[in-house]
Amino acid sequence: MNGARSLLSGLVGAGVDVCFMNPGTSEMHFVQALDAVPDMRGVLALFEGVATGAADGYARITGRPAAVLLHLGPGLANGTANLHNARRAHSPVLCVVGAHATDHVRHDAPLQSDIDAIARGASGWVHTSGTTRALASDAMRAVEATGRGGGQVATLVLPADVSWSDGGRVAPPRPFPVPSPVSIEALDSVAASVGEGTVLLLGGDALSERGLRAASRISRATGTRLVAERFAARMESGAGVPTVDRLAYLAEQVRPQLAGATTLVLAGAPSPVAFFAYPGVESDLVPDGCAVLELADAAQDVVGALEALAGRLASDVDPDLAPLSPVDPEPGPLSVRSLGAAIAVTLPENAIVVDESITSGGGLKALTTAPRHSLLTLTGGAIGQGLPVATGAAVAAPDRPVVTVEADGSALYTIQALWTQAREQLDVTTVVVNNAAYAILRGELARTGAGGADERAQRMLDLTDPTTDFTAVSRGLGVPAERATTSEELVAALRKAHAEPGPHLIEAIVPPVA
Amino acid sequence: MNGARSLLSGLVGAGVDVCFMNPGTSEMHFVQALDAVPDMRGVLALFEGVATGAADGYARITGRPAAVLLHLGPGLANGTANLHNARRAHSPVLCVVGAHATDHVRHDAPLQSDIDAIARGASGWVHTSGTTRALASDAMRAVEATGRGGGQVATLVLPADVSWSDGGRVAPPRPFPVPSPVSIEALDSVAASVGEGTVLLLGGDALSERGLRAASRISRATGTRLVAERFAARMESGAGVPTVDRLAYLAEQVRPQLAGATTLVLAGAPSPVAFFAYPGVESDLVPDGCAVLELADAAQDVVGALEALAGRLASDVDPDLAPLSPVDPEPGPLSVRSLGAAIAVTLPENAIVVDESITSGGGLKALTTAPRHSLLTLTGGAIGQGLPVATGAAVAAPDRPVVTVEADGSALYTIQALWTQAREQLDVTTVVVNNAAYAILRGELARTGAGGADERAQRMLDLTDPTTDFTAVSRGLGVPAERATTSEELVAALRKAHAEPGPHLIEAIVPPVA
Repeated sequence: MNGARSLLSGLVGAGVDVCFMNPGTSEMHFVQALDAVPDMRGVLALFEGVATGAADGYARITGRPAAVLLHLGPGLANGTANLHNARRAHSPVLCVVGAHATDHVRHDAPLQSDIDAIARGASGWVHTSGTTRALASDAMRAVEATGRGGGQVATLVLPADVSWSDGGRVAPPRPFPVPSPVSIEALDSVAASVGEGTVLLLGGDALSERGLRAASRISRATGTRLVAERFAARMESGAGVPTVDRLAYLAEQVRPQLAGATTLVLAGAPSPVAFFAYPGVESDLVPDGCAVLELADAAQDVVGALEALAGRLASDVDPDLAPLSPVDPEPGPLSVRSLGAAIAVTLPENAIVVDESITSGGGLKALTTAPRHSLLTLTGGAIGQGLPVATGAAVAAPDRPVVTVEADGSALYTIQALWTQAREQLDVTTVVVNNAAYAILRGELARTGAGGADERAQRMLDLTDPTTDFTAVSRGLGVPAERATTSEELVAALRKAHAEPGPHLIEAIVPPVA
Repeated sequence: MNGARSLLSGLVGAGVDVCFMNPGTSEMHFVQALDAVPDMRGVLALFEGVATGAADGYARITGRPAAVLLHLGPGLANGTANLHNARRAHSPVLCVVGAHATDHVRHDAPLQSDIDAIARGASGWVHTSGTTRALASDAMRAVEATGRGGGQVATLVLPADVSWSDGGRVAPPRPFPVPSPVSIEALDSVAASVGEGTVLLLGGDALSERGLRAASRISRATGTRLVAERFAARMESGAGVPTVDRLAYLAEQVRPQLAGATTLVLAGAPSPVAFFAYPGVESDLVPDGCAVLELADAAQDVVGALEALAGRLASDVDPDLAPLSPVDPEPGPLSVRSLGAAIAVTLPENAIVVDESITSGGGLKALTTAPRHSLLTLTGGAIGQGLPVATGAAVAAPDRPVVTVEADGSALYTIQALWTQAREQLDVTTVVVNNAAYAILRGELARTGAGGADERAQRMLDLTDPTTDFTAVSRGLGVPAERATTSEELVAALRKAHAEPGPHLIEAIVPPVA
């Protein structure tokens, strides 16, 4: 059996049975092996950033890695922005990067480049497979590596000759890493600190249903305040789940949120820092004089730790669960507020919501009143994540409807994802919020102290002239689309999209707010 | 004056007065400085790969660098595939990558990543500017670096605080590197070798009009055969220019092309190698027993060397110039052949032709019969280069019509370029050849010896289900579009597009050939 076949067989044996891909010549044996290993599902993407973002979305829903097949250094580079988001999400992702045959490298053919250097931009583990015999075993190490540190990107570079040569043998899977337990000392230390004045900052797995329920019990029993990290890889939300306020995006909004805290307990979340630096503004958002304790980092069993604390401190206390209480949006022209209400009031049960709404997301707080759902957000700040993550989430959970709330500027980064949604007939409803601007940058221009901007600068933040017609682009890529300018139209379009199988796109015309 | 303003002023002083950009928060002061430095033209791209590819196209036409403004590591990664193509084109390109403020880095905010590592994937020069005082001076070194080695990518990392702080001062430009002369010994050695049995392999600047004329005279006087490298950054072509056959793409086609050569003289071109490796196939395409001499590499004055040789060997010989002789395409349904003929017969004078037609480019040989034009090709094999390069070429030469021949699969990589063409009202006519497949990969699947492919593998190479409607996508991005299925329709659409100002797209439906 050739290397490629041993690789695919090994991966399937390790439970990695989906591969998002954009292959080229050096990956042809991998592609051909799809016929011999029918348990591996190949999903074609028309741009690598779609494939890597889809693997991120898949991992956020399943907790397990999908494979991504990329073509040499440029293909890896094209996928790196969404690998960066996956890294920040602690998503396990296995990249297989096809490379020139070992003996071809010295000829410096046109596609030769430093794959390792590019891989270091987002991967926590990088290895070039040297022999066909060891390939499947290398792949098992790579799969294991994706689970380390709470989840990371592992990149296996696959020279074409290693793939095409005979002598491959399947290797047994390695145990997938599990979170390490939190020490008794850490639990004791946090148990002694909870109470009024303490803020429990929840992140990572603490935002799972179990984590949120335990945190809610601790909060009710002790008066500890709960805050969730801003950019959660996955947060359970909606009716039947405890509602937790999220940290604000802007430093000046976070400061009042955390004001008065004397102790900050990090439960799976990093210490709060400003997203960007600004002249004369402190980046560290921990209040002056506030102690910081770490209950668990991303690699540790934060859910177990929270449940242990709840057992100690709140054994007879129930969590505070959100009721189902969505409210119809105010009728008339769409606003950021009515956009959120329309999505909440139409949200199907057990949905997955992908939020890359940037400045148009203010109204999405209404989702806490909606049916129970999983919320996936832009973890690494590299825009163009929403459509791909939604694609992968839908592949991971074919029984769950996916709703993507997507900003116009971000949508255009990886718009090719719509095609994959059409091909795979995924149940994804994309709401593109068209405000015809990089609206966030208008606000940032002022906040960075850059001062006013005249026409020449403003034109670099403005997405009119021409204004994209997302319905045309979507139809061109095979996804039926319509436009909504009022709440009534948006609600009707959402209900229709949720009722019909396959992907849909709704272009929501909303005035900019930033 | 703040750093950003000193940077823009310095760049303009050094003749770098176009900046293709997709900025973010950390670049706001750079954007704001556009108002204060009106000689710097900002051109917005909706995806970084468009910005970097445009800078490549700009450089190929002007021989000088444009700047590219990118947002942190993910923005650089998104632009890296086309920087790879620029590197292979020896295009001078100046990347300015905004980074977090110096003191913000230690907080590991969401967008923090290893920018240097990613930059090494395509840049020959990388430097992080440490102080506002030195910023403009660093930029002058960066501009100089873009001209070294025959042209390369230089990346200047710009921390936000270096950009926003006061204390910037403009630095004087440094002399832009010029090609180094070829030694007399090298000229003597080649002069002694030309004649029957010798092949002069022309690349880089040897494919300029002066280079081609000198080479043609040498060929006529001595019987030396001329061959051009396959993937030229820029090659002059058409009526009034010597016609030179290009190396074939496939190794098995190159071997007969070079068969019988006893000496191969490299004139600005690398030694011929297979684009990809294949099982049991030698990558080195120099015939057995053939001597290889290097007249000039990319950093050397190959035009001067060819003219010196022509002066010695062919002082009374004129070059062989192509006549204007386009032939109408055969009427009826489009084929690869009639596609090329239609483009040639309608080509305006002094056009720029960007060829990323992949398998559909066979008919473009007809361009040698068309009016004189410059031909820009896919130098690095990283697809998604055509639309961006055409965009930058059109910015560089507003008086020259640009025609892009673009494969469907490649077009979808960086389709956002159409928006920039619409915004800047560039005179670009894009012919997307829609064969609804990664047709080249069907051929490669067989050539790599991967064997036959059944449905599951074939589906990864197939772009139907759904087939993209490029006219809808194009209109959605602001570029008027129509579809052509016959030669008559294509000729009419081309004539109309050439007659009207601004960008146009024509979707040409052509059966796959690979």
